Amino acid sequence: MALIVQKYGGTSVGTTERIRNVAKRVAKFKAMGHDLVIVVSAMSGETNRLIGLTKEISATPTPRELDVVISTGEQVTIGLLSMALEAEGIPARSYTGGQVRILTDNTHTKARILAIDEENMRRDLNAGRVVVVAGFQGVDEDGNITTLGRGGSDTTGVALAAALRADECQIYTDVDGVYTTDPRIVPEARKLDRITFEEMLEMASLGSKVLQIRSVEFAGKYKVKLRVLSSFEEVGQSEGTLITVEEDSNMEQPIISGIAFNRDEAKLTVLGVPDRPGIAYQILGPIADANIDVDMIIQNVGRDGTTDFSFTVNRSEFEKAKAVLEGVKTHINAREIVGDNKICKVSAVGVGMRSHPGVASQMFRTLAEEGINIQMISTSEIKISVVVDEKYLELAVRILHRTFGLDQAA
Amino acid sequence: MALIVQKYGGTSVGTTERIRNVAKRVAKFKAMGHDLVIVVSAMSGETNRLIGLTKEISATPTPRELDVVISTGEQVTIGLLSMALEAEGIPARSYTGGQVRILTDNTHTKARILAIDEENMRRDLNAGRVVVVAGFQGVDEDGNITTLGRGGSDTTGVALAAALRADECQIYTDVDGVYTTDPRIVPEARKLDRITFEEMLEMASLGSKVLQIRSVEFAGKYKVKLRVLSSFEEVGQSEGTLITVEEDSNMEQPIISGIAFNRDEAKLTVLGVPDRPGIAYQILGPIADANIDVDMIIQNVGRDGTTDFSFTVNRSEFEKAKAVLEGVKTHINAREIVGDNKICKVSAVGVGMRSHPGVASQMFRTLAEEGINIQMISTSEIKISVVVDEKYLELAVRILHRTFGLDQAA
Repeated sequence: MALIVQKYGGTSVGTTERIRNVAKRVAKFKAMGHDLVIVVSAMSGETNRLIGLTKEISATPTPRELDVVISTGEQVTIGLLSMALEAEGIPARSYTGGQVRILTDNTHTKARILAIDEENMRRDLNAGRVVVVAGFQGVDEDGNITTLGRGGSDTTGVALAAALRADECQIYTDVDGVYTTDPRIVPEARKLDRITFEEMLEMASLGSKVLQIRSVEFAGKYKVKLRVLSSFEEVGQSEGTLITVEEDSNMEQPIISGIAFNRDEAKLTVLGVPDRPGIAYQILGPIADANIDVDMIIQNVGRDGTTDFSFTVNRSEFEKAKAVLEGVKTHINAREIVGDNKICKVSAVGVGMRSHPGVASQMFRTLAEEGINIQMISTSEIKISVVVDEKYLELAVRILHRTFGLDQAA
Repeated sequence: MALIVQKYGGTSVGTTERIRNVAKRVAKFKAMGHDLVIVVSAMSGETNRLIGLTKEISATPTPRELDVVISTGEQVTIGLLSMALEAEGIPARSYTGGQVRILTDNTHTKARILAIDEENMRRDLNAGRVVVVAGFQGVDEDGNITTLGRGGSDTTGVALAAALRADECQIYTDVDGVYTTDPRIVPEARKLDRITFEEMLEMASLGSKVLQIRSVEFAGKYKVKLRVLSSFEEVGQSEGTLITVEEDSNMEQPIISGIAFNRDEAKLTVLGVPDRPGIAYQILGPIADANIDVDMIIQNVGRDGTTDFSFTVNRSEFEKAKAVLEGVKTHINAREIVGDNKICKVSAVGVGMRSHPGVASQMFRTLAEEGINIQMISTSEIKISVVVDEKYLELAVRILHRTFGLDQAA
């Protein structure tokens, strides 16, 4: 007997038949004696349909009213799932974000959760009801409807689990867990039984397909036990992947947990700028002002009083970033601006590398042996990322996956 | 400068293009200096789509959850219309029933309005904003979402006009007013400039296509000036039909305002029951227990210690009512149960008949001259209804329309 928060995404509730299946799944957990809070997304396609309507009205819809419209997607799902549960003989009650009261700030379309009132949910749980909550939404202190931004339903699930001190937050999706890498590139990729929050964050490029990163940060901060599972498997068929705070000290820790990658990268280099304090700000300030997110940043050691400065941006912002740099080129005394939008980033992630020096050199040697030139390197305590030519992406991911022993069952 | 409540039905907001047209119409009223509260229905087809989803989940959806689902239809419209107004440069703010706070009882799917908090709307009106309110919905005192039943948006409009002491409540629909009778049957039918609440209620069979009867009762009770107009005409092109409390004493009052009719009728007669106290209850009690609504009720003068008892029901309940009567036939000592589901009801309605005796006899003579046999007669202070064979419906409506001078312009 535990208190479990379960979150079902848009695909899992994409049709009324699937909603009935979710109700049957919840009924099984209820029969085991658990208390259940269910968080749901809008039926798949519904949020896009609603956004489409707003676009027909205005290219720049009022954010407050956009939230009024798109929050209806989840509201429909909570009503339908509660009905489906009642049809299964399970007492249930639905809650919009405002009815729970999930209090947020007033940043419409990307609000942050400030507080959650657990009183109403507790009363229903104590009365034996399953509580069904609309993900992705809340209200500000004036009662205006807010939404948390795309993928916000994961965050709702984790926040409710934290507020209710739930034993576990289960995120149901259409994959059965977090993998060592993308199985479409490496068929030998294995599902991980557990992964730490830090690793999960670094695995963003893989994890973002499974879990919204903000919810992982939230779970780490509030020490919520988070589990990723498939809603298309039978209850109990798989334990999915558990995302935990602690490293597992009882098991031999793998050095590397997974190989992440990102294809949507582009690289920009400012050549021959004066090597003096403030030059980084002079280059990146205009980029930030243009609302362009920067990922990796590398500054080489200066030579002859000048230095080279490189950074990566999302590929879709490559041309825009290049134009910004050309605009400030004279002002910053740069010799030349060069760029490449046919690159990718490949990362080895694992908390084990903290206690295992030599991971970086092993990674570089492996890539060199395959003739793959490394263009940029960036490291964190639990991650080593390299930028390589895009054509080497699959090869690099495959050989690193093998080199670090991820092909073998744990 | 006036405070006007305008209500736009599902057809008027049926597409995003039509919603933009409503915004343009509201902008014109705003430019005249009026304060405006706009009540909207769900986009046409949307409520049925949502009900369809619930039917796929359960044949008997939980009423509380049904309200959670179907109330989203109006919520989408308020967001879209508010955006469209802002896009026209008109400051606007949307309100769900709960946000206004339209307090109702907890009778889900057919709740009654108990109170309306005008504070939030007043604040926005004073700030120069157009207030856009979701029709058809409210919240009970525990914050559960409720709906008012089909056509409830008219009631929301009238209730808001009453609470705000608005100068006028305008109901926009796809017809331009209330007619003397259905123009599809009598091409000479004329639009009425004004009609009293009592007449409007008696004209139900015509009026129900234009206005929800409950909203008319509400408007009469709270003395709200109610006007029916077309949303497909230019602003100012027509004054529609004004529904007022007072008879217009400055004008020569027409004796008859309109000819109403109802085709969906069926008649049942219990022949030869003992003419003793309590017999009406013995016959109609079982009918009421079977949830069958009874319209006209006629009991003939008794003869030889027995009497004949007739009543009409909706045609769809004819067989069910007949079966109920057959079931109690022996118990009530009836000689025979007979029925006819090929009948219709035709009514002449007008407050003027109060001061003009002889309307009934003129009506009966006119029908007799055309050879139309009258099967049942029922009268109220401002209405005379007859039941005739269904095949005479069009003929009866046409000749009565002409006899009472409704073909001529007022």
